[in-house]
Amino acid sequence: MDQTRLPREVVYRECHDERAVWEAIKTLQVRGAPAIGIAAAYGVCLGIKSAPDDEQAFFQRLDEVASYLASSRPTAVNLFWALDRMRRRAETLRGQPLDLIRKALLEEVRAIHEEDRALCHAIGRWGESLIEDRSGILTHCNAGGLATAEYGTALAVIYEAVAKGKRVHVFADETRPLLQGARLTAWELKAHGIPVTLICDNMAAEVMKEGKVQAVIVGADRIAANGDTANKIGTYGLAILARYHRIPFYVAAPSSTFDLQLSHGGLIPIEQRDPREVTSPFGIPIAPEGIDVYNPAFDVTPAELITAIICEKGVIRPVNKETIAAILGRALAGPERAQTVVK
Amino acid sequence: MDQTRLPREVVYRECHDERAVWEAIKTLQVRGAPAIGIAAAYGVCLGIKSAPDDEQAFFQRLDEVASYLASSRPTAVNLFWALDRMRRRAETLRGQPLDLIRKALLEEVRAIHEEDRALCHAIGRWGESLIEDRSGILTHCNAGGLATAEYGTALAVIYEAVAKGKRVHVFADETRPLLQGARLTAWELKAHGIPVTLICDNMAAEVMKEGKVQAVIVGADRIAANGDTANKIGTYGLAILARYHRIPFYVAAPSSTFDLQLSHGGLIPIEQRDPREVTSPFGIPIAPEGIDVYNPAFDVTPAELITAIICEKGVIRPVNKETIAAILGRALAGPERAQTVVK
Repeated sequence: MDQTRLPREVVYRECHDERAVWEAIKTLQVRGAPAIGIAAAYGVCLGIKSAPDDEQAFFQRLDEVASYLASSRPTAVNLFWALDRMRRRAETLRGQPLDLIRKALLEEVRAIHEEDRALCHAIGRWGESLIEDRSGILTHCNAGGLATAEYGTALAVIYEAVAKGKRVHVFADETRPLLQGARLTAWELKAHGIPVTLICDNMAAEVMKEGKVQAVIVGADRIAANGDTANKIGTYGLAILARYHRIPFYVAAPSSTFDLQLSHGGLIPIEQRDPREVTSPFGIPIAPEGIDVYNPAFDVTPAELITAIICEKGVIRPVNKETIAAILGRALAGPERAQTVVK
Repeated sequence: MDQTRLPREVVYRECHDERAVWEAIKTLQVRGAPAIGIAAAYGVCLGIKSAPDDEQAFFQRLDEVASYLASSRPTAVNLFWALDRMRRRAETLRGQPLDLIRKALLEEVRAIHEEDRALCHAIGRWGESLIEDRSGILTHCNAGGLATAEYGTALAVIYEAVAKGKRVHVFADETRPLLQGARLTAWELKAHGIPVTLICDNMAAEVMKEGKVQAVIVGADRIAANGDTANKIGTYGLAILARYHRIPFYVAAPSSTFDLQLSHGGLIPIEQRDPREVTSPFGIPIAPEGIDVYNPAFDVTPAELITAIICEKGVIRPVNKETIAAILGRALAGPERAQTVVK
């Protein structure tokens, strides 16, 4: 689904090669850290369809395709995680017939895709316990089904709370410059019949002050080993506002969002995007021509501002290096395990 | 100047009756608390042009026109202040020929207009001492020449600092929903040759975190007796972000912005505006049809988050009931006095 066309049109685009996938990721037709990973992994399968029949050349082509797809966006770690997993799967099959490797890689991406569904549901189940009945919940950008295989991360928590009979009212930040909150989250929640009020990003503090928000829940694009979290620009400011108003601030993300090689969030690369996203929304100029613009796509929220991180393996609280390592080291138990072992 | 057309077009509109003035204020063709007061006062002169020749009917018409103009926007107190001043001026002339009263009222509005220029320059002079050389300054909405008779309030401080040879770089919040920062402040600063970078509202925290901001300066629409300040929606959140980053947060406004009858900011009425400002900027729908929207035009920043208020009579610091009363009780000294006595 070309998410840049929502909510005005529901348009599906077919991608027949890795270039189309790269373009779809780059231009945010597909966005959301988990969904980007899944799309890129499918892109690998498309890219090796026409790979040479010689093994060395095949693996070289696989590497090139994966590197190319990795260049689409720099911040979301799920992208690199999914591409690495595809590469590693292929490596384990070196020496096997190439058609078998191709088939195995398609199975691998389908597994990633299915696992993500299961992970999102597990995140929802862990997270809903944090939501009180009759809660106002503020969210930013879109961490819903549109950002994942299904169900979402932050929104999974909301869907699950509603499924358990809790009454919630969601405040969706519109999320400038690309308005994912207005276009996607509002659309998705409305489609699910969940009460939602759209606000501009700069209204969040006022809504909190009025006592309408009992929890803030957002997704994540990359989480460092100490819990510092990169997410859509504006998240860091929201975390400060939540702290000031003594409102819990939750991050919901699958464990593939953690980048344990980075000791803290200062090491996360932040994508800078085209100034025209700010100055010409929908091609309409709203600012003087030639004006200087700063347009970082993400910011990093320090762990100390995050009440808890919800992943498929449990709730990490308080958020620090030790609690993260402990929860991530957990084997999946019960239903999560059953659902994620799909191969 | 029809500010809704900026920055794409510079269009001037002539208003020939009070209805045209009301409409121009309501639709934000003229906006900014001081400019609204001036425009409304001119509107009174237009409204009594065709008043009856009978004194009682004349004063009744004057009252009706002033009440009508006061209904254009509820939050900016300068509007009511200017209209009251016009009424009071007329009262002092009861018994005089009506043409003399009409002439005196035109002189009164011209005095308000001229005084505002002088006040803005005085605010600039008081405020520039708070600005360090090589400062990054963040501002919100437009508190510049476009919002006043000339020069502005928050921007007057910047203009004066630059005039004194200080090097500044301004970050202008775009200020959703109506984008006064992108459309007006960026345009105005660029026209003055002052370095300015446009950001989305939700990027302010990140810019502060990066150490690019040494001061935040905003205007005000109404200030309660204790210093609680109503200003464009988003101001309150910025004040919290500034406090978190230990950045001084300044409000710049003429003394007519104070409403000493209100003991605290909770008593300031907040205008709620049309949801379509959020959902359909420039007539382009960006959100699902029928979505619920919250669109308050202003918020109230508590005095405790305000480092200082700069008015034409001096710098109020710390901000509380006593310091406000002391500074507002001051007679204007020296150049401010000379410039404000224009009649």
